[in-house]
Amino acid sequence: MTQDESLFPEESILPRPSDASDDPNLESVQSWFIAQKDYSERFGQVLRKSIDEVLDGQRTGRYNLYENEGVGRVEKTERTYLGTKVEIVARAEFDLGFGPSMDYMIAGQQVDAKWTMGDSWSIPREAQGHICLLMQADDVAGSFDVGLLRITDDVLRPGSNLDQKRGVSKSGRKKIRWIVKGGKLPVNFLLNLEKEAPEKVRAIFGASANYRGGGNGGQLRVNELFRQVPGQLVDRTTVVTVATQHDGPKRARDARLHLRPEGLVVLGHLKPAPQIASDLGLPTPRNGSWVSARLARVTDDDPRRATVINGSRYGLWRGGDASVAAPIIHATDE
Amino acid sequence: MTQDESLFPEESILPRPSDASDDPNLESVQSWFIAQKDYSERFGQVLRKSIDEVLDGQRTGRYNLYENEGVGRVEKTERTYLGTKVEIVARAEFDLGFGPSMDYMIAGQQVDAKWTMGDSWSIPREAQGHICLLMQADDVAGSFDVGLLRITDDVLRPGSNLDQKRGVSKSGRKKIRWIVKGGKLPVNFLLNLEKEAPEKVRAIFGASANYRGGGNGGQLRVNELFRQVPGQLVDRTTVVTVATQHDGPKRARDARLHLRPEGLVVLGHLKPAPQIASDLGLPTPRNGSWVSARLARVTDDDPRRATVINGSRYGLWRGGDASVAAPIIHATDE
Repeated sequence: MTQDESLFPEESILPRPSDASDDPNLESVQSWFIAQKDYSERFGQVLRKSIDEVLDGQRTGRYNLYENEGVGRVEKTERTYLGTKVEIVARAEFDLGFGPSMDYMIAGQQVDAKWTMGDSWSIPREAQGHICLLMQADDVAGSFDVGLLRITDDVLRPGSNLDQKRGVSKSGRKKIRWIVKGGKLPVNFLLNLEKEAPEKVRAIFGASANYRGGGNGGQLRVNELFRQVPGQLVDRTTVVTVATQHDGPKRARDARLHLRPEGLVVLGHLKPAPQIASDLGLPTPRNGSWVSARLARVTDDDPRRATVINGSRYGLWRGGDASVAAPIIHATDE
Repeated sequence: MTQDESLFPEESILPRPSDASDDPNLESVQSWFIAQKDYSERFGQVLRKSIDEVLDGQRTGRYNLYENEGVGRVEKTERTYLGTKVEIVARAEFDLGFGPSMDYMIAGQQVDAKWTMGDSWSIPREAQGHICLLMQADDVAGSFDVGLLRITDDVLRPGSNLDQKRGVSKSGRKKIRWIVKGGKLPVNFLLNLEKEAPEKVRAIFGASANYRGGGNGGQLRVNELFRQVPGQLVDRTTVVTVATQHDGPKRARDARLHLRPEGLVVLGHLKPAPQIASDLGLPTPRNGSWVSARLARVTDDDPRRATVINGSRYGLWRGGDASVAAPIIHATDE
């Protein structure tokens, strides 16, 4: 925009944001979003929920939106539908109305929702002249962007595909008014784990290799999950995806009994578990999340962080510590 | 098949079912399904859940899969995706494996899932020679069918569409081996109500006309729902769709307070509510369902069905009865 300003020196006396435009209607849509409480976090949740619902991990065990092949693949129809899901979830989250011809009515303006998993958005002819709410997310990088763009010929690539849709051009992209740029997408635990330690993901899903679906297999996988990722906060989506069944949270509770002999506790959100996690320097589980830890009995003069359970003192297990069965933690508000 | 039999008189000595075929592999798939516990009810649930998830009433307020226009419309991408959702939900429900090239592996056979909301199924070229699990449902009629068909040229219509897909022909349809024919789809309460009493649906969704989304509007709509349909079992999907918010069940609980002055109770699944419903001759609410009723104080010698709440005797209100505030029902296992 610096170039534009140099063309109109009289207008550039007042400082303007570097991406300022002469589109007050678009600016009013942008201002509307920025006035919404926690809008950035909420957009992140919108995209997280949309992706997770399409992956449907509870039924499919899938966690990777980008998988093209094999049993865990995401079909083209599902990718297309994800755009519709994002539109629906964003509308519900921000209570957006319907425009007469575009998806939304925001701050008196018609706005069309456009989603992409890739680099650019496909803009249909009907959107010409209208404002688009452009959303994109990268589930591997854990980031997302949301911006606004008035669709004119000069923001689009010259070529159109079979559907008469055109991509946003490189120069068009520079005209996007960002609402959230480089936002932090709530983490996809399993996809992240696969990136950092693929052998752990293989161990988790392979734990039921001798089973076919059903309760036992899911339990074995959830047990292995808590063995593989001690000290890490595990969310509900991860547990139901690993369990690949409806009652994932029950599998997390039952894992406590299975893992006790190995010295592992699975801490949930009910008291006193969050305090125990905090005592040990672990992340604090909230409702719908868990953190596992292998415990060791420690003496009063042991310098490591410790917690007292049923009158005994425990710290995080280290090589050389004696193996003990994990204590039973009685929830005080269950 | 009678015709076929007449061509092979030697083979028709043994009595055969009228739809018998010479396709033992297809028959083994059929036998597999029929051996599954409650398979018909479970297919009904598969289709109900799939439709409800795509409608996403909690976020959209939609309940009519066939709506093409306006705010409540279902997009083409959503209809296409519904087929994928049905495939996923059926796989999870019956724990079906993946075939090397087709969707499922059932009883050692590759089987492709095909769904239609209409009269016929679109069969892609890749399915040639394979067995298809054909599923269809009519949400207005409340019925569904599931069957198996080996795809050969003579069961398909001659013309193909742009996607190289062909419909199942009239004679092909006759060759379908039905697993469920004319099954009862779990009821779509709001769609059914709209069919029988459209003015009631208008009253329910119109109850928040002066509100825009949010808690209050949802509460007003849920209150009106229980006013409009006393004596009818209302399921969770209906409540969240009317509320168009996450905490629909809380709206049902809060409706009790709002409707008390009008003499209405909203009976849920916690004791003693199911017994009260039963005493009054109402359907019994289970977990995730409710039934409302307007009550009147009745004397011991009143012949109508009655129940005792907090020491007082109540029956269903009739014209002429005095208006009384509804009693507060204290859940004994809440």
